[in-house]
Amino acid sequence: MVGKVKPAVPRGMRDILPETMIRRQYVVAIMQEVFELFGYEPLSTPAMELWDTLTGKYGPDAERLIYRVGHEGGKESLALRYDLSTPLSRVVAMYPDLQRPFRRYQISPVWRGERPGKGRYREFYQCDVDIVGSASMLADAEMLDITHEVLTRLGFQGFVMRINNRKILTGIGQFAGVPRELLGGLHRSIDKLEKIGLGGVKKELRDNQIPDDVIERLLELLQIGGDDRAILAELQERLAEYPIAVEGITELEEILRCMEDLNIPRQRYQVDFSMVRGLDYYTGPIYETVVEEPRIGSIVGGGRYDEMIGMFTGSSHPATGTSFGIERVVEVMEELDMFPPELGTTISQVLVTLFDEAQLTASLQVANELRKAGLNTELYFDNDPLGDQIRYALKKGIPYVVIAGPDELAAGQVSIRNLPLNEQRTVERGVMAESIKDWGASGEK
Amino acid sequence: MVGKVKPAVPRGMRDILPETMIRRQYVVAIMQEVFELFGYEPLSTPAMELWDTLTGKYGPDAERLIYRVGHEGGKESLALRYDLSTPLSRVVAMYPDLQRPFRRYQISPVWRGERPGKGRYREFYQCDVDIVGSASMLADAEMLDITHEVLTRLGFQGFVMRINNRKILTGIGQFAGVPRELLGGLHRSIDKLEKIGLGGVKKELRDNQIPDDVIERLLELLQIGGDDRAILAELQERLAEYPIAVEGITELEEILRCMEDLNIPRQRYQVDFSMVRGLDYYTGPIYETVVEEPRIGSIVGGGRYDEMIGMFTGSSHPATGTSFGIERVVEVMEELDMFPPELGTTISQVLVTLFDEAQLTASLQVANELRKAGLNTELYFDNDPLGDQIRYALKKGIPYVVIAGPDELAAGQVSIRNLPLNEQRTVERGVMAESIKDWGASGEK
Repeated sequence: MVGKVKPAVPRGMRDILPETMIRRQYVVAIMQEVFELFGYEPLSTPAMELWDTLTGKYGPDAERLIYRVGHEGGKESLALRYDLSTPLSRVVAMYPDLQRPFRRYQISPVWRGERPGKGRYREFYQCDVDIVGSASMLADAEMLDITHEVLTRLGFQGFVMRINNRKILTGIGQFAGVPRELLGGLHRSIDKLEKIGLGGVKKELRDNQIPDDVIERLLELLQIGGDDRAILAELQERLAEYPIAVEGITELEEILRCMEDLNIPRQRYQVDFSMVRGLDYYTGPIYETVVEEPRIGSIVGGGRYDEMIGMFTGSSHPATGTSFGIERVVEVMEELDMFPPELGTTISQVLVTLFDEAQLTASLQVANELRKAGLNTELYFDNDPLGDQIRYALKKGIPYVVIAGPDELAAGQVSIRNLPLNEQRTVERGVMAESIKDWGASGEK
Repeated sequence: MVGKVKPAVPRGMRDILPETMIRRQYVVAIMQEVFELFGYEPLSTPAMELWDTLTGKYGPDAERLIYRVGHEGGKESLALRYDLSTPLSRVVAMYPDLQRPFRRYQISPVWRGERPGKGRYREFYQCDVDIVGSASMLADAEMLDITHEVLTRLGFQGFVMRINNRKILTGIGQFAGVPRELLGGLHRSIDKLEKIGLGGVKKELRDNQIPDDVIERLLELLQIGGDDRAILAELQERLAEYPIAVEGITELEEILRCMEDLNIPRQRYQVDFSMVRGLDYYTGPIYETVVEEPRIGSIVGGGRYDEMIGMFTGSSHPATGTSFGIERVVEVMEELDMFPPELGTTISQVLVTLFDEAQLTASLQVANELRKAGLNTELYFDNDPLGDQIRYALKKGIPYVVIAGPDELAAGQVSIRNLPLNEQRTVERGVMAESIKDWGASGEK
């Protein structure tokens, strides 16, 4: 015990204390349930990957954010994973016997040495669902179906899944006559349309050395209005000479047909060909879900990446997937007060008090009877005055206190206090768990 | 796409593929359920800690195994956590407002750069339950109660929870006249009693420069026989002059009384004062659970560590906790074939086949109807021959195939094939989910 250490966490990282963890676990459980309903299988990969696995996947700016790892005498060049897509691609390449299509989900932290900011952490969780080995647009539609199902089960109402296709963006680049090396800048500018408006995009494109006549042609395209079908028809006409764009448009139309087959409400999705998504590796449909309130950016996003796994195997493996941002989902749900009140702020539903040493055996047994009935129950360990024990439950947010004093026990009874209602009942010991469950269920709590 | 990368994982680490993940999740869900029944709350801490938080906690041999972490431009000295106890201690020190006693569980990976071997990995999961802020032996008994409940729910039969107390070990050292600096060696030798026998321990002690007369007195102690009460009474008599030993014996007796109150079967626990446990930081009761078969070492272990949190706060915080080795638990359960057969090897319970493009809408809707009824269902995406689709389900281990051809659909029906039984039925579409559930439940599967 040489001098105490001032306790702290690394910059950009944080502890998740019980109250928040209870909410995260609620969200994760619903995601996991939906993923499994669609037949997705759990996968776990190590936090560390060989440096060679990660390098060349994300572009130089992102690569600088990757954490390097090592220990005394360790000979490998190791790094912490940056996302869950590259580890999945490695897994698919390593285990050729995995049945295709391979549907998997993974819920794990990733690490990026970014400048920390509001809602931006250096350790955060990704909840990814991916399907490897199918080129069908049904797979992409399934991503949107899963997104819709998860958000609906969580109680989201004002959300929109935006859909685009990288092939259309490539076609638009060809149409505008933008040279290959400027395509990235073009996409980044288009991506900002919502944020900076048409005028802003125009200025950005100029700054990016795109010629004025090209800018005019582009802005005309970006202003096509109407419903999704009308937009796609108009685009199809204007980009008819660019096969890659036509392919992208056909794919989008297939996805839209599936969405109708799936009876997904029309206001929940829309084609948005100004939506780009940052990562380099997308090759086809891309999707991104935003909520109307609060303005927090996208909460789910993904797309098709048919070439990534080939970086390991040398052969092409069609794949598509989407990723839920659990931090943002929880943040929105907190802001909109969407968590069910019965979730509470603590795990324990019941505190069993300790009357005195002589009643210890009975208190232990009462606690275990409540647990056997499925109630999360803690026992107060110290021989403090009853008032202190009840104050502990109040402060912690435990709704029920069971008092098993010698008189009650002798009569085969216990007293139950409902703290939120500030009411007390004495019941037969044999029905105490049911009494508590009924009391809670009757909505009086 | 510059030259392909040979896919591999870092030495001593591994992917957990779906079949194994399904089993791990089954185990973790039961642990979590029991932890919550006892009122333990979930906590999550970052994978990384400041180096200063970890240093000085585990001893120099262990400290060499800690992974160091950094990224370009990062200024902090960072490391990956080595266990979950130190992060818990840091949390308790950082958030003085957390209600005490603070019961928490955490299920997370830890990293140690050890030489990999059979069942020894550089990344492995710990499932820890701890209670901070109670010096009561009830807290220690609760650890054993939780251990017993988890293992019983998992179906373990031949397990024993060994109980000892560091204070007794200290007393034995005083009794034997072993100087402080040799106490560690003494404990390590005693710990090997089961493995190397009395003769082996004798030789080890001699090699450790313990005088012959001391060894004789020690071996006499180690040979005390009888039931737990008899052993403790005998020990109490022989160590009566060593207050620290008497304190330890009294604590053990309190724990034994609780075990009786809790009706934990007598054959499930025993006092074993040759059981030491490795870590330096234990201060009171220690416990370790072993299974009779297979011989794999302990699967659960822990103890009281009243001084550790003080390394951060400067003041004493009583704490006790236990840790489940999930890898070993899964290994034993696999070896003894303890997993329920209905767990299966894959997530999907039903495959919906695709008859042809014209039936796509119907197939999508049939799949969603099955999901709505709670059945994990995947849809076959490609227009392959029915035989191929069924072979896919067989290979993957999906038990049911739903065939929705045009004739069946026109009659408002679907066909269900039970693959394990190789039987097929045609049922009304409205009851297909119930038919599958009944078919499975009838034990025919």
